[in-house]
Amino acid sequence: MLFFKVKGEVRYGKKKLGTQTVKFKNPPSIIAGGTIVGPKEGEGPLRDYFDMILVDDTYGEKSWEKAESKMFQDAVNLALKKANLKISEIDYLLGGDLLNQIISANFAARQLNVPHFGLYGACSTMTEGLTLGAMLIDGGYADYIIAATSSHFSTAERQFRYPLEQGIQRPFTSQWTVTGAGATILASTGEGPYITHATTGKVVDLGMKDANNMGAAMAPAAADTIITHFKDTGFTIEDYDLIMTGDMGRVGRDILLELLYKEGYDIESKYKDCGIEIFDESQDVHSGGSGAACSAVVLNGWLLSQIQNGVYKKVLFMATGALLSPTSSQQGESIPGIAHAITISTTL
Amino acid sequence: MLFFKVKGEVRYGKKKLGTQTVKFKNPPSIIAGGTIVGPKEGEGPLRDYFDMILVDDTYGEKSWEKAESKMFQDAVNLALKKANLKISEIDYLLGGDLLNQIISANFAARQLNVPHFGLYGACSTMTEGLTLGAMLIDGGYADYIIAATSSHFSTAERQFRYPLEQGIQRPFTSQWTVTGAGATILASTGEGPYITHATTGKVVDLGMKDANNMGAAMAPAAADTIITHFKDTGFTIEDYDLIMTGDMGRVGRDILLELLYKEGYDIESKYKDCGIEIFDESQDVHSGGSGAACSAVVLNGWLLSQIQNGVYKKVLFMATGALLSPTSSQQGESIPGIAHAITISTTL
Repeated sequence: MLFFKVKGEVRYGKKKLGTQTVKFKNPPSIIAGGTIVGPKEGEGPLRDYFDMILVDDTYGEKSWEKAESKMFQDAVNLALKKANLKISEIDYLLGGDLLNQIISANFAARQLNVPHFGLYGACSTMTEGLTLGAMLIDGGYADYIIAATSSHFSTAERQFRYPLEQGIQRPFTSQWTVTGAGATILASTGEGPYITHATTGKVVDLGMKDANNMGAAMAPAAADTIITHFKDTGFTIEDYDLIMTGDMGRVGRDILLELLYKEGYDIESKYKDCGIEIFDESQDVHSGGSGAACSAVVLNGWLLSQIQNGVYKKVLFMATGALLSPTSSQQGESIPGIAHAITISTTL
Repeated sequence: MLFFKVKGEVRYGKKKLGTQTVKFKNPPSIIAGGTIVGPKEGEGPLRDYFDMILVDDTYGEKSWEKAESKMFQDAVNLALKKANLKISEIDYLLGGDLLNQIISANFAARQLNVPHFGLYGACSTMTEGLTLGAMLIDGGYADYIIAATSSHFSTAERQFRYPLEQGIQRPFTSQWTVTGAGATILASTGEGPYITHATTGKVVDLGMKDANNMGAAMAPAAADTIITHFKDTGFTIEDYDLIMTGDMGRVGRDILLELLYKEGYDIESKYKDCGIEIFDESQDVHSGGSGAACSAVVLNGWLLSQIQNGVYKKVLFMATGALLSPTSSQQGESIPGIAHAITISTTL
């Protein structure tokens, strides 16, 4: 189904009209992940899995935005250290974040001095970068790539919603933007875990307009990509040990499970969401965590560790993005969603 | 220099440590370009080369932002029509724009219903998309991709500088953001013009802080990518019929030529800038045109037509981005630049 013939040669790739999934010929290995999180995330249930926990979310900088860019840079440096690589050995950085003009990524890239592709996929950035990065490696253009992203509660709240000083009450559907940054290094050679497949999402919008209910805005896109993945690959739910989304939160989780159930996919027994796992209910984050860093730090912290320890062998990992914009929202537009899924497997 | 050996097989690609250039094995063909511009661009010297000229820059929409997204969508549709393709035959859209959360691209992608990678490279987006798109095709992941971008004078001015109603005086170093959108379709098979090489830029920042002098902010990044391209490929200036930048404007042009001259590269006789070509000096645009659409409409309008007519056979085309952000500027940061170059050639 995923094979096609070109000039008499069997090749892998995305060629069947209408499919959105690539199967990699030489699947890249995830060789290192770097994570850094804020104080609140450092008090959560996954605290033991992060490389660095800030005691102060300004990180010694004069603004939260500068702090976020520094976290981005340090997540990359932490990953480099673990992989025993220098930045000059990295072929491309694929990075983005939630801030206007992706300043966290761009200013970090300035310091890192590496060929850079700037991405904007909102909270789907982690798997957008990993998908493109895997293609660049499998395609023969790179030996090593870094995919990275960040978010910060204080920079996101004041850009997307209200000034923090206003102390506005948050509805129960709202999510808490994760303060943190995560970076993954992919390599052309390695012993896994491998990225074997990638399903690229479409922008889906069922008309949700509430900036405090990102889970509902993302659920249709998340469902669309998961269903497309199963149809394109022929995989079933049983093929996976874990199906994990980026930041659906409790509200989005329930909608997603229902949307999938209606289409004949009951994934509940295999399902987890980074946004639900990263905080404890006692931390008063309402529907759960969110932000581009949510999936990035859970993937590069907790999940890679679980895979390394043999807990999971094959995972469908999908960062989910709500394409929320204050400008378009003020002009009456709804909030579209997008989700990109990758298959992480310990075997080929 | 650009060859490397893997498992006894000679392959093309970017493998030599420190290089930033890819040479494509099966160079993708540019099979169509779609352009749409605003009224002012439609009065400029390149007016005959655009597919559509708006008589009203609101394009019948209630906001300039909605108009910009509609232009983005229509540039894609114009390109599809010329290529005689349906959107369902396109494997990936690689799109971005200047607006926060790239709403022009994302809302267009929502209507187009196509797998989408959102990019943010400011005014370098056109060649960022073409570079990644060429890799996706040459790598075997796509038969057809669309790279597209847009900008709009009124959306950009009010987001990056001042409300238009304020009628603020523009200094002579300032540039006029092009209202328009351009889309290119790349195909795995075709008769050219081909994208044969791609040099991916780094974020470069020499400390420029003036939001009304983008040319100066971009010049160091532009020089860096051009010099890297010549060093990586071994090409000389004589190998090219034309070296064209995206939106340096007159101020940036002079700085770029000087920076290159100091490093031993005298490109002046082969050099043009989209930002200088798109407007006539009588149009009172000061240093010239700018914006993500500037390079996009000149490439997909004027340049492809010149190549088709045999005027140019080998072109180094480089969109140039100033990573200007009101947030970081207000926090005292300078404006970094980035530039991505591609070689367009009629022969292989």
